[in-house]
Amino acid sequence: MEKTIENLKTLVRAGKGEIPAHRVVLGGTLINVMTSEVYPADVAIYGDTIVAVGDVSMHIGPETEKIDATGKYLAPGLIDGHIHSECSKLSITGYAKAVVPCGTTSMVSGLDEYISVSGLEGLREVFEEIKGVPLKVFWGAPYRTPYTVPQSTVAFNFTKEVHAEVQQWPECFGVWETVREFVTEGDDDTLGAILQADKNRLPVFGCAPMAQGKQLDGYLCGGIRLDHESYTHEEVVEKMRKGMHMLIRESSVTHFLAENIRAVTEVNPYLARRVSFCTDDVTASDVLSKGHLDNVVRLAIAAGVEPMAAIQMGTINSAEAYRIDHMVGSISPGRIADILLVDSPESFRVQAVISDGELVARDKKMIRQLTPPPRSAVLSSELKRTLTRPEDFHYRVGIQKGKAKVLSMDVKGPFVRQRRDVELRVENGVVLPDIDQDVAMVSVLERFGRNGNQSLAFCSGWHLKKGAMASSCAPDDNDIVVMGVDAADMSLAVNHLIQNGGGQVLVADGKIIDFLPLPVGGIVSDEEPEVIARRETELNKAANALGCDLPEPLMYMFFLPITSIPDYAITDVGPVDVQALDTFDPILELVED
Amino acid sequence: MEKTIENLKTLVRAGKGEIPAHRVVLGGTLINVMTSEVYPADVAIYGDTIVAVGDVSMHIGPETEKIDATGKYLAPGLIDGHIHSECSKLSITGYAKAVVPCGTTSMVSGLDEYISVSGLEGLREVFEEIKGVPLKVFWGAPYRTPYTVPQSTVAFNFTKEVHAEVQQWPECFGVWETVREFVTEGDDDTLGAILQADKNRLPVFGCAPMAQGKQLDGYLCGGIRLDHESYTHEEVVEKMRKGMHMLIRESSVTHFLAENIRAVTEVNPYLARRVSFCTDDVTASDVLSKGHLDNVVRLAIAAGVEPMAAIQMGTINSAEAYRIDHMVGSISPGRIADILLVDSPESFRVQAVISDGELVARDKKMIRQLTPPPRSAVLSSELKRTLTRPEDFHYRVGIQKGKAKVLSMDVKGPFVRQRRDVELRVENGVVLPDIDQDVAMVSVLERFGRNGNQSLAFCSGWHLKKGAMASSCAPDDNDIVVMGVDAADMSLAVNHLIQNGGGQVLVADGKIIDFLPLPVGGIVSDEEPEVIARRETELNKAANALGCDLPEPLMYMFFLPITSIPDYAITDVGPVDVQALDTFDPILELVED
Repeated sequence: MEKTIENLKTLVRAGKGEIPAHRVVLGGTLINVMTSEVYPADVAIYGDTIVAVGDVSMHIGPETEKIDATGKYLAPGLIDGHIHSECSKLSITGYAKAVVPCGTTSMVSGLDEYISVSGLEGLREVFEEIKGVPLKVFWGAPYRTPYTVPQSTVAFNFTKEVHAEVQQWPECFGVWETVREFVTEGDDDTLGAILQADKNRLPVFGCAPMAQGKQLDGYLCGGIRLDHESYTHEEVVEKMRKGMHMLIRESSVTHFLAENIRAVTEVNPYLARRVSFCTDDVTASDVLSKGHLDNVVRLAIAAGVEPMAAIQMGTINSAEAYRIDHMVGSISPGRIADILLVDSPESFRVQAVISDGELVARDKKMIRQLTPPPRSAVLSSELKRTLTRPEDFHYRVGIQKGKAKVLSMDVKGPFVRQRRDVELRVENGVVLPDIDQDVAMVSVLERFGRNGNQSLAFCSGWHLKKGAMASSCAPDDNDIVVMGVDAADMSLAVNHLIQNGGGQVLVADGKIIDFLPLPVGGIVSDEEPEVIARRETELNKAANALGCDLPEPLMYMFFLPITSIPDYAITDVGPVDVQALDTFDPILELVED
Repeated sequence: MEKTIENLKTLVRAGKGEIPAHRVVLGGTLINVMTSEVYPADVAIYGDTIVAVGDVSMHIGPETEKIDATGKYLAPGLIDGHIHSECSKLSITGYAKAVVPCGTTSMVSGLDEYISVSGLEGLREVFEEIKGVPLKVFWGAPYRTPYTVPQSTVAFNFTKEVHAEVQQWPECFGVWETVREFVTEGDDDTLGAILQADKNRLPVFGCAPMAQGKQLDGYLCGGIRLDHESYTHEEVVEKMRKGMHMLIRESSVTHFLAENIRAVTEVNPYLARRVSFCTDDVTASDVLSKGHLDNVVRLAIAAGVEPMAAIQMGTINSAEAYRIDHMVGSISPGRIADILLVDSPESFRVQAVISDGELVARDKKMIRQLTPPPRSAVLSSELKRTLTRPEDFHYRVGIQKGKAKVLSMDVKGPFVRQRRDVELRVENGVVLPDIDQDVAMVSVLERFGRNGNQSLAFCSGWHLKKGAMASSCAPDDNDIVVMGVDAADMSLAVNHLIQNGGGQVLVADGKIIDFLPLPVGGIVSDEEPEVIARRETELNKAANALGCDLPEPLMYMFFLPITSIPDYAITDVGPVDVQALDTFDPILELVED
């Protein structure tokens, strides 16, 4: 309901029972996450707000809709504490269709992939789209864009001056994903955003993978409230002892729960109080097959967390971490009516979903129809880039023929690349990729018409045997990333994206093998989740056919430009040594024949 | 430290150990309220900020001051979650001298008594004074002033338009003490203040004594976050089940802990998570003899609360309730360095106090000298009121001689007055007080030169045998309250206050028995706490000598104008029926002789 004095008066009257509720949920058993109690209670809802919990008989009028919850438990709607929904390649509308039936009714997001391709104008269009879906987005303004050191190219640069404006917006609930290095190295825009947030009473969300000891202390002195990325449970424990809220990430590519949750199950059960969950990056197929936050709750229970504590991690703990517990996270009078009907706290199967006071999903299916909005030119997927030639993917060196010792970025996890020294052949002044040694070429091409940047380097771990693959969906810059063992195929892959308005493509032997268009900003699609899930599987199979045996070859590729995790990455300005916070020359030594 | 990018960079560097700490606390055992763990840990402090906890050897430089905590436990500075320090009759400087040695380093306050007598101009002067004391004040802007229905007279009316301005101030951390009736009856200023707070991400603090059931539901639909006033533990439990944070009040006149804490010790230990403490109104003598928040922590432990949970109630729980846990409430890097050295978690004797990074008190004595600031005319104690005559305290009725059946407000507790019907004599057209029946006259006189209002009514319970007593310190309006059994003495008492610039006075047989000047705004004094404590005792003894046998006769009197608690009160506009939210006529029946 719109925030006006008159509406507030109406809600108060509804709470007092002076006007009937629009809906009541009857016969259920309340999972009270505020008090850790479970007891029978009915719920009265007026508009989008819970107005009474307990005996609601006096709230029932002739027009009041009754929702039968007999035999069910009532849990608060789940909160995904940190998610780039864009990485699912689903638009907000498509994403809501996928996750709301799983019980996720709120998410905390930077919407940063939209911003990197379409700036604040595109963001406002996404805010409008959000109003039409039963999934609340608590937006954190990116601490800066791009997130990279050295600075890469995106469509819009988020600065401290931008923060001064956007932190006033009602959609803004904090500062998004403040990467450790930008704090500990004293980046002016980052610290400016933090100071602005302090002034505006907004929390600063962190991103400090592997930060411990003095780097963590320095980071915390910057005023960071929480983190969502710890690689070990010891890291979780240290961060929490030093006062942080911790989100455990269980994404489609990084399964951290089993390890991280040991902080609670093995070290100290009291830590549960400030632990919550996030999925960060998920694929449509994963959500459709396993579920979403509901699955994370189930995993935590399976790992030995008390069901009540696990449900709190999925609801109120996140709400408190983000200071949105006055709106969501519990079934209490005055909160938004996001209520799940679940089979039991132990098995936690979501059977119906009430969001913003409306029954929107039942038996894992949306009841409410969701239609994507018309897309303006702002969120179009035009890639502002001239066509490439095969030579653009030739790594040229100062010798004509011989050997090159090169540093190949060897993939060790979706975000982790380590050094691998390899010796490659040089022919006609070009260092050649090597299928036998598993060394491919990788290139990132700026695609916003800002400077035409292109980088080129070497990578390993994909086991690509032929062809190339490319994506214009590539967090966090969403420049074009292309990987391949054949320069002509790489060029064709990139050109296909440029000519077809973005997406993901696989090429071999001069032919397009498969292509998924991503017409919204070149990063997401308005297709149904089922369609994207099927196409994802097909793309992965096509990549497998080219030799790739990683679990998510395209996803592992499109994370290559992320510079926040050691040791190596690549952006449009070049291959990056993450520890040195600088670009590096992958050619270690040249020996002429 | 001032919030600038350069200072933030410096703090981050100090956290990383690149520049030495100003102070380190060595050899202590940390009470980690974030994780409920107790373990040895040192602390490094830079300026007013904790920059490292654990091994701080690399933070020690040649200039670093070392504080020895060997054999001691380190607890976070205590937070008083709801306090009108003015009611102690101590100025901010005097109050800090009293409570800081007890370990209270933060308080949440509306400073509303200052506002009622001196408006925003006086408030700004108090903010300046606060900068000079080692006691942080997290100010909540009063939801409106006056708090009364019907509206009484104060020097400054806080409206929703004022909220639009002051909620932008860095000193403002929420909306103060939003009384239930103003929400449930839909007061525009109150709801306007709440909406403004929602926009500014500020929490709304409540005041809902005895609110349960539908009134509570309606109140919560107004968006109230917490409450500090429950009369029973069942009330505590209901409020918490409905999603509120609860502060348990243990003031000098209302000892609620023993009863309220049963919500935790008998009903549900998990509730401890969102329970914290406040003292609301304390006397100087009480603080000097028993302690302050430290005493409340000890009382909770004595009542059966685990020491760790009790300490959390006095620190982090309050900080979370008020959303100031990024600043205070725990000993964590990035938080303000408020650290107590205590003997043990179980006995919780505060032996030294570090506030804002500086050692300010040891062995219950201030080390740092505190000097009150010069007072401007804004906070002067001029009572803007012409002198009274004895006739002003004659209750005139329409008969010359006979009997009057009147409603006397019978005191049942410091804030609770109930109906008592008594028959009084009427002579010469005046209803006479009656010592034998314990019926005194009570009058409230507006003192801000706004309208000259004066009310007059009857009260019981003080057992006043002769004379009168008056106070210009009288929350929340701080108009003049006078009670007496002799009209001439009442007039003399009021006139003495007017002629001497406010305070508290006792009169008998036409003579001033005792007088405590309160030269700051007519409500507080810059005298030392010890002086005020002694003078309080003397005033109470003098009141005892007049027959008063209540524990705090003057305090019970000066709470008479508070209209937020049933059943009766009196303000300058007349005696008030709190349930009816209207003035009432105390004359029930007249019988002419």
